[in-house]
Amino acid sequence: MLPFASDYMEGAHEKILERLVETNYEHNPGYGTDAHSGHAKELILSACGLDADEADVFFLVGGTQTNQIVTDSLLRSYEGVLAARTGHVATHEAGAIEHGGHKVLELPEYDGKIKAADIAGYMETFLGDANHEHEVFPGMVYISHPTEFGTLYTVSELEEISGVCGRYGLKLYMDGARLGYGLAAGQYTEGLPDLKDIARLTDVFYIGGTKVGALMGEAVVYTRGLYPAHFVAIVKQHGGLLAKGWLTGIQFETLFTDGLYMEISGNAIRYAMELKKALQEKGYQFYIDSPTNQQFIVMSNERLKEVSQKVAYSFWCSYDEAHTVIRLATSWATRKEDVEALIALL
Amino acid sequence: MLPFASDYMEGAHEKILERLVETNYEHNPGYGTDAHSGHAKELILSACGLDADEADVFFLVGGTQTNQIVTDSLLRSYEGVLAARTGHVATHEAGAIEHGGHKVLELPEYDGKIKAADIAGYMETFLGDANHEHEVFPGMVYISHPTEFGTLYTVSELEEISGVCGRYGLKLYMDGARLGYGLAAGQYTEGLPDLKDIARLTDVFYIGGTKVGALMGEAVVYTRGLYPAHFVAIVKQHGGLLAKGWLTGIQFETLFTDGLYMEISGNAIRYAMELKKALQEKGYQFYIDSPTNQQFIVMSNERLKEVSQKVAYSFWCSYDEAHTVIRLATSWATRKEDVEALIALL
Amino acid sequence: MLPFASDYMEGAHEKILERLVETNYEHNPGYGTDAHSGHAKELILSACGLDADEADVFFLVGGTQTNQIVTDSLLRSYEGVLAARTGHVATHEAGAIEHGGHKVLELPEYDGKIKAADIAGYMETFLGDANHEHEVFPGMVYISHPTEFGTLYTVSELEEISGVCGRYGLKLYMDGARLGYGLAAGQYTEGLPDLKDIARLTDVFYIGGTKVGALMGEAVVYTRGLYPAHFVAIVKQHGGLLAKGWLTGIQFETLFTDGLYMEISGNAIRYAMELKKALQEKGYQFYIDSPTNQQFIVMSNERLKEVSQKVAYSFWCSYDEAHTVIRLATSWATRKEDVEALIALL
Amino acid sequence: MLPFASDYMEGAHEKILERLVETNYEHNPGYGTDAHSGHAKELILSACGLDADEADVFFLVGGTQTNQIVTDSLLRSYEGVLAARTGHVATHEAGAIEHGGHKVLELPEYDGKIKAADIAGYMETFLGDANHEHEVFPGMVYISHPTEFGTLYTVSELEEISGVCGRYGLKLYMDGARLGYGLAAGQYTEGLPDLKDIARLTDVFYIGGTKVGALMGEAVVYTRGLYPAHFVAIVKQHGGLLAKGWLTGIQFETLFTDGLYMEISGNAIRYAMELKKALQEKGYQFYIDSPTNQQFIVMSNERLKEVSQKVAYSFWCSYDEAHTVIRLATSWATRKEDVEALIALL
Repeated sequence: MLPFASDYMEGAHEKILERLVETNYEHNPGYGTDAHSGHAKELILSACGLDADEADVFFLVGGTQTNQIVTDSLLRSYEGVLAARTGHVATHEAGAIEHGGHKVLELPEYDGKIKAADIAGYMETFLGDANHEHEVFPGMVYISHPTEFGTLYTVSELEEISGVCGRYGLKLYMDGARLGYGLAAGQYTEGLPDLKDIARLTDVFYIGGTKVGALMGEAVVYTRGLYPAHFVAIVKQHGGLLAKGWLTGIQFETLFTDGLYMEISGNAIRYAMELKKALQEKGYQFYIDSPTNQQFIVMSNERLKEVSQKVAYSFWCSYDEAHTVIRLATSWATRKEDVEALIALL
Repeated sequence: MLPFASDYMEGAHEKILERLVETNYEHNPGYGTDAHSGHAKELILSACGLDADEADVFFLVGGTQTNQIVTDSLLRSYEGVLAARTGHVATHEAGAIEHGGHKVLELPEYDGKIKAADIAGYMETFLGDANHEHEVFPGMVYISHPTEFGTLYTVSELEEISGVCGRYGLKLYMDGARLGYGLAAGQYTEGLPDLKDIARLTDVFYIGGTKVGALMGEAVVYTRGLYPAHFVAIVKQHGGLLAKGWLTGIQFETLFTDGLYMEISGNAIRYAMELKKALQEKGYQFYIDSPTNQQFIVMSNERLKEVSQKVAYSFWCSYDEAHTVIRLATSWATRKEDVEALIALL
Repeated sequence: MLPFASDYMEGAHEKILERLVETNYEHNPGYGTDAHSGHAKELILSACGLDADEADVFFLVGGTQTNQIVTDSLLRSYEGVLAARTGHVATHEAGAIEHGGHKVLELPEYDGKIKAADIAGYMETFLGDANHEHEVFPGMVYISHPTEFGTLYTVSELEEISGVCGRYGLKLYMDGARLGYGLAAGQYTEGLPDLKDIARLTDVFYIGGTKVGALMGEAVVYTRGLYPAHFVAIVKQHGGLLAKGWLTGIQFETLFTDGLYMEISGNAIRYAMELKKALQEKGYQFYIDSPTNQQFIVMSNERLKEVSQKVAYSFWCSYDEAHTVIRLATSWATRKEDVEALIALL
Repeated sequence: MLPFASDYMEGAHEKILERLVETNYEHNPGYGTDAHSGHAKELILSACGLDADEADVFFLVGGTQTNQIVTDSLLRSYEGVLAARTGHVATHEAGAIEHGGHKVLELPEYDGKIKAADIAGYMETFLGDANHEHEVFPGMVYISHPTEFGTLYTVSELEEISGVCGRYGLKLYMDGARLGYGLAAGQYTEGLPDLKDIARLTDVFYIGGTKVGALMGEAVVYTRGLYPAHFVAIVKQHGGLLAKGWLTGIQFETLFTDGLYMEISGNAIRYAMELKKALQEKGYQFYIDSPTNQQFIVMSNERLKEVSQKVAYSFWCSYDEAHTVIRLATSWATRKEDVEALIALL
């Protein structure tokens, strides 16, 4: 089977495995207080153009955990999260945000993205209601970049959203489960934010490791002095504190040494763009115009039956009675020969 | 520095690292639905003498997370957990149990253990209070084995506790963060429960991986038909669902193949007993009589000053103005030469 | 000012005040264990045609509290509540449902009502998603009757919804904050459910007192054996247990003696229908066709300016640049002369 | 039966009932925004010697609700409450504090009171633990005054506790469910705090209405600028916002007009002191030396059998095999003739 089902179907980049083996018998202190984690934080802050005086980084294990902990750490009990109705926090986290007591306040979505104007509109309506203390207060805006549909915000869209958030006192949080692929897309698409833009324009975001070369791990970056007091206690209370914290530290240390994170993200995007171009030339209809590693195509159910004998893909949704939307995902682990075979086959 | 600070200061047993490298480019489905996880569950159920019809196993990442999820999965909102006042859930989880809405109801402790009679006494007082619907209902008993002091329950103590729990409708949960070391202690101390005893006498327990040879991971075993409906949703909601679930699956598959888990636990215990015997002969005072991998000794502060130049240990508590209690821990990773050097030095 | 702002702007019906004065120096036991509360429960069960063997009643203080406690008492942690997107739990309870950890899953609304077909559609989509353990499980359906727009379900609509709930294992909960007005509307509109229909078709509902003649208080009726074990503990844990429980008991005892609840509800509806008819004849445009005590009319902003000098009403929403929708509410406390004056004035 | 079971067995003081009847047909705005509530707040701030610029008052319905909302409003998620192990929040609220995610950290009790030195000791141990981010952070100190045993803090004890709280950054909260009786005790016992002392020395406290003449209601006073932003939303989210907020407003307006609160509290204390003196003279053994309206005496089980035919009292605890501790409580509603009859009988 050609492996295009998703970007978390393989273990980790070899360099990470090598480093884990090399460091296996070091005696590192626990809970992220080790030197590798410290070094990884420095490397990340530097890549983000952030100053350790007001920014900080913490390594968590997974995406839902990260979304939950960040939300709980920044919101007051009566505040909720504004998010696209297709946002991961709104749909696929089994109520992890509500488990922390917060409501996800849904905004319209445009291929998975939200608009600054809709945030402003929500706030105007909310503030305009004399009785708004009986409603959930918007406290944070959640965006994913890339979104669940592989789409990306431009720098100017991000600036607009950031501006609106500032105007209304909303924290801006970016879910970067696939951030590497979003950053690497900048090589093919103009106007996209780089890591420094993101660090400049959000209050907190995370750099996804699980889907970009690590066994597991997400690096949460609080950019602007909002790093919560006693964050370790908050993480521990959520059951999210890794005893062997250096495991995520070493992985991010490796990913942010010699540009590995961008290099492997770049491979995934290059293959995705080759695939996209080839499928466009073959006349395939794209469900969404995605600049990242997830490509969504419409396929007849008949054809799909054959294809599914040879290709591992993701079912996305029904298109109509005779057609289906499937997702093909490249990743840090994608091999040239598999892309070629896929193109040949489709 | 001689490495006796704790049992989670190194990565993982070589066989686990080897298996992670070997399987790195398999394309495993996510969230624990893979074949390695399935195989690991079978191996564990078999080792426990449990039947897949009424028992089930799930792999989580860490101990606090496991305690939290098990508690939330089994208790009604108004129920709490009876535990030793020194139990991990009562002291060192930053309120993770309370975060789920449950109170830890403290019982007296005897070197970290609780007594069946105290559970019964608590229940009689509770039920005898006409107004007990204004109190927190005891719903579960939490024990750790080994305890936080390295001590162990005997089979007969466990039978008594299990009996009392059954009589009062309390679920019995065992925190087995260091379970391997508790099981291996049976080679040196009589009357201790083996894995099948534990599976027979508890409702749910976990087999610790993080402190016994794995990078991370704990195997939760629901023994008696209490496996919660939609447990995946509960785990996801808590932010505890590992995307690459096979990572914990492969680790437990390896630990429960060819007796590796017991073998490496046995090494730790053998070294601990050698150390204990040697220190006894040298006349050291033991703070607690521990049959497992954690040994607690009383040392003069003066002597400790020297020792701390060469030995990594854990500060436990002050003994008196001139003495300190320290903990020396062996583990799966302990080497013969380090034990010998430590004995020579002390 | 003519008092039509809402139905909770006055204290309580005289008979209730009289009874509170008469019983003031009784020495009643606390927390709802008194004879008045017991008697009130019997009267309510009898009015509902329910059997004390499988049904039970509990008195709470307010509507949001009731919605929160009922939800928490019936749902598993990973379950949510299906509700109209305009439902009170979705909009005006400051996140009380999320505070208990549950998500409100929004359905389309039709003048505040939901449709059985939409519930079924939601469930089919949910169950059809192979990954639905990553979503919030629907566990309960919330309906309000009358709705926030004064509209009502017919018996056949309620039967359909009840049937769909049964088919998918969903509990059906009715918020009856204004239930009296909904019941009394049956005198003017055909096909509406009476109290026994509601008791037969829902799993739990509440009979609103706060808006129907009581100082405060709502009577929660669990109709079908779902009364939660140790409900007093659940209520206490939520801070909802009234020390002087007889205060709500006496109020409902009074309301359900000699048909007072229906009598005062009937007055409100009679005046509302007179008002509606008069305003229809005067050519007013109605925003919603409401059969209950809340009437929504469209008024030019200019005219509204004058009216607001003399009438206390509720602003509902903007209609267009030149018009506003206002709500006029009658209640148990409405006086004939005020209705006549209002009709004369408008 | 002579009515000495508790202080919440009767309705309300006549003046309160009169005012409720008088104001019944006013059309007051809801949720505590009415003029009565505003006036009551002014009266209370004035009685407390507090300035509306930095202090504020809010009316809630009951004591457990108040403890829960105050705790949730002031603590961060990882913080807990230090309290006597006999404190109401620790024992008789069915886990209401844990329901909000906070742990009650138990301190030793001395007839229901805690000591400043024990708070300081707890904090020193906590801060001295290098790993204290794995524990629950103490964030607030809870005291009850009178305590659950009827005892009171002196001004100097309160100053010490307040000082320690300030030193360690702990908020100081006083549960005043029976505050009136505590204040009135100052007529008989020296060195006790008055209302201004309490307002000066705590961060937040409540003035109990339910047990001191009101139908229901507690007045929460935030004394020092800690009144939470959007407190209405917090209360609503907890299900604690009374629709007809003026009902509690009017009751406190009445209680704080012409000294009614102190007058009726004084009656209860005068009768309690008469009873105490008479029973001392008759040679009764007192379980606790209480200066307030709750008196605890030791009685032989034989004698108690007779007494219980004629007196409503509270069982407190077993004293030994042949004796029982009972509580006799006076209240705002106690009548002279009943006290005399009780003294004659005992």
